[in-house]
Amino acid sequence: MQAILDYIEQNRQRFVDELVEWVKIPSVSAQSARKADCGRAAQYVESQLNSIGFETRLCPTAGNPVVLGKHHKAPGKPTVLIYGHYDVQPEDPVDLWQTPPFDPQVRDGNLYARGATDNKGQCFAHIKAVEALIQSNGELPVNITFLIEGEEEIHSANLYDFILKNKDELKCDVGVISDSSQFGPGMPAVTYGLRGIVGEEIRVTGPKQDLHSGVYGGAVANPCNVIADIISKLKDQAGRVAIPGFYDDVLELEPWEREAFAKLPFDAKAFNDSIGVPEASGEQGYNVYEQRWARPTLDVNGIFGGYQGEGSKTIVPSWAGAKITMRMVPNQDPEKIHQQFVDYVKSIAPPSVQVTFKDGGGCGAVMVPRDARFMDQAIEAVKRGFGAEPVFIREGGSIPIVLTLSEELGVHVLLLGFGLPDDNMHGPNEKFSLDDFIKGIKTSAWLLHLCGEAK
Amino acid sequence: MQAILDYIEQNRQRFVDELVEWVKIPSVSAQSARKADCGRAAQYVESQLNSIGFETRLCPTAGNPVVLGKHHKAPGKPTVLIYGHYDVQPEDPVDLWQTPPFDPQVRDGNLYARGATDNKGQCFAHIKAVEALIQSNGELPVNITFLIEGEEEIHSANLYDFILKNKDELKCDVGVISDSSQFGPGMPAVTYGLRGIVGEEIRVTGPKQDLHSGVYGGAVANPCNVIADIISKLKDQAGRVAIPGFYDDVLELEPWEREAFAKLPFDAKAFNDSIGVPEASGEQGYNVYEQRWARPTLDVNGIFGGYQGEGSKTIVPSWAGAKITMRMVPNQDPEKIHQQFVDYVKSIAPPSVQVTFKDGGGCGAVMVPRDARFMDQAIEAVKRGFGAEPVFIREGGSIPIVLTLSEELGVHVLLLGFGLPDDNMHGPNEKFSLDDFIKGIKTSAWLLHLCGEAK
Repeated sequence: MQAILDYIEQNRQRFVDELVEWVKIPSVSAQSARKADCGRAAQYVESQLNSIGFETRLCPTAGNPVVLGKHHKAPGKPTVLIYGHYDVQPEDPVDLWQTPPFDPQVRDGNLYARGATDNKGQCFAHIKAVEALIQSNGELPVNITFLIEGEEEIHSANLYDFILKNKDELKCDVGVISDSSQFGPGMPAVTYGLRGIVGEEIRVTGPKQDLHSGVYGGAVANPCNVIADIISKLKDQAGRVAIPGFYDDVLELEPWEREAFAKLPFDAKAFNDSIGVPEASGEQGYNVYEQRWARPTLDVNGIFGGYQGEGSKTIVPSWAGAKITMRMVPNQDPEKIHQQFVDYVKSIAPPSVQVTFKDGGGCGAVMVPRDARFMDQAIEAVKRGFGAEPVFIREGGSIPIVLTLSEELGVHVLLLGFGLPDDNMHGPNEKFSLDDFIKGIKTSAWLLHLCGEAK
Repeated sequence: MQAILDYIEQNRQRFVDELVEWVKIPSVSAQSARKADCGRAAQYVESQLNSIGFETRLCPTAGNPVVLGKHHKAPGKPTVLIYGHYDVQPEDPVDLWQTPPFDPQVRDGNLYARGATDNKGQCFAHIKAVEALIQSNGELPVNITFLIEGEEEIHSANLYDFILKNKDELKCDVGVISDSSQFGPGMPAVTYGLRGIVGEEIRVTGPKQDLHSGVYGGAVANPCNVIADIISKLKDQAGRVAIPGFYDDVLELEPWEREAFAKLPFDAKAFNDSIGVPEASGEQGYNVYEQRWARPTLDVNGIFGGYQGEGSKTIVPSWAGAKITMRMVPNQDPEKIHQQFVDYVKSIAPPSVQVTFKDGGGCGAVMVPRDARFMDQAIEAVKRGFGAEPVFIREGGSIPIVLTLSEELGVHVLLLGFGLPDDNMHGPNEKFSLDDFIKGIKTSAWLLHLCGEAK
């Protein structure tokens, strides 16, 4: 392994340079105008895999293409499927970025750019680990399949079908995904749980066009007021989701988990300061880790209606809309939650407006058991790569495809996050520590090495 | 008078052409980028007055200039102050206009353009009436002062000071404003009441930047959810404003008014269809006219926060905002209502966010007594100009300066609306019937003639 670790150190700058080229591409999957950019990002990562001897394919889907890369030259050895995604979140609000989101800059040892950590940087760490193994040893200790998609940020709409249709080709012994985080600086983590997600968009329509609020105000339901009423009724005063049946299937936290989470360091002031809020606010009866990792919740991601410009415009707006996501925990079913949401909103909407729905898709939550195959190797790899014993935690984010990979391919998925919780995934000034990038590469190299040695 | 009425008919097309030139100018006072356009609109109307022998001045204010035009050559005759405004509402949503808002088009006898009816068209009717009187008779039957401002749509922020400073120059016996509407087609109106208005803008700020809704959702107050909660608490289930003290000073409807309004024709289906709502919705216990003309209310004119683009962005947004206006009835005090609003919102906002306020200004409601000076002449003028007996009604809109004119100049203001309720003031496809334009010119000519003959 020493030659491999040396190779990684020696090529550090080139690795960063190559990552920079990738994150320059604005592959925002939510925006159809960026479809060509998504294609370029796919081609870039395909060429990376190709250049280190992988057999690659750019597989079209109804949406953005899937990049498949295979290096199956280790007969008798396990096959590791490494998943990543080349699409990124929208970059707005652009004016809050210190440097442009797609003009990557290194400051204080961090690479700042949209996609730096989520997920190009973390995905690239695995690719560079594989390069290091191949270039140093001429071969790989395991068989490897890279599955890199371009629709993770829009709930992996087309990957589910792709996996179903390509089950044989994707056959493997374990999945590896680095799309989560360390617990904190110097505290790497192995993640054993993820929340699921259900996306909704609602639109409340009142008058056929904006009306003069003096002439009509007081006699016509105002869609902005109505959407506020609806949203207000989605959660109760105790911070719980008020949709009937929402908590029916929730897997409650185990006593050992609550005990373990209670032992994790937590500095309320530091937490509040880090995100800039006067105080935290969440479901009563649960601590902040529990609220973020293991309790379901509902957030309005965007709300809009009427006049937003400078000054005033005295209208009863014709319509208002909101984008909403619910995070779910294990055992909650996205389809069922979606239906409960729609039924409830319909039941509380007044007859003076029309409400229409757009299903934003979703995915279930995930749990990876402690005794999953190769879990010991994962823990050991993180320990060697990051130089510290990892903590065993859950995370609040969602990786839509984990459940599909587990269920359809019959394997467990190891969740090894290389970034930090304050890397501003999805927000402005997203970053990735270049030290963490290198530690991630080493962790990946160790993991593949240890898997190759496993019985 | 016959020569005057003939002159009006003979010059019909030129009057329309000149109005078209005025409405072409996008004098949107709410948008600072359009300040120069406001200036051009002021100059246009000044030159119109100047060309018919008025002594004119373009008076600078802290905002848009006031156009003052005087023709005081009828000693012993009353002085009539005619108020109008050259500023217009913002034109968005532009995509809902059938033809561009500042490219006036005539279709089916209507002029379509922003400002066609509110207020350039109606104001222009008075100017063309005066032109007809002067050109036909060589003199005017009364002394006339035109006061045409450029900030009506932003609550006449600077006109109050202007009037106070120029009280002597503005001295008059009666005010005339055409910024309201007829009751309906073939049913002209004299308006005796207007609602007041108070504008508010609130901003709810949570985390210092957008956060990943998976990583943080459930532990942090979401500004979009919070602003929905706040707005939801501003009105109750019965359609009443829930701000404590809001109704304390409300002048209740007189029995004769409720009786008169109940007699006005009302076709619920036609009303709902005309604005395109499934059903009307307002304060319980009042009919639609009462709700719109004589009851206070609260409307969100715009709401905004988080991601509004295509697809999804899974964030807890950093902030959310809303523009709100309350319409007030006589005896409610704008300052007091503003303070009640601020106090109440502060009291219901959770400590996990910051709420900031922007005072959007406002004005009180107005009542013009039936026995006001020249009211008989106004009713007769409308009857002759429109060829039908006018109804005596209130209106729901606000004309900020009416109260100031009444109080500071000690005169009543006659409210003679030439447009129609469905002229889409403030909305897309604003229009003004060219027949109503001509009838308005005739009404104005009759009014000035009758005032000149009055004892």
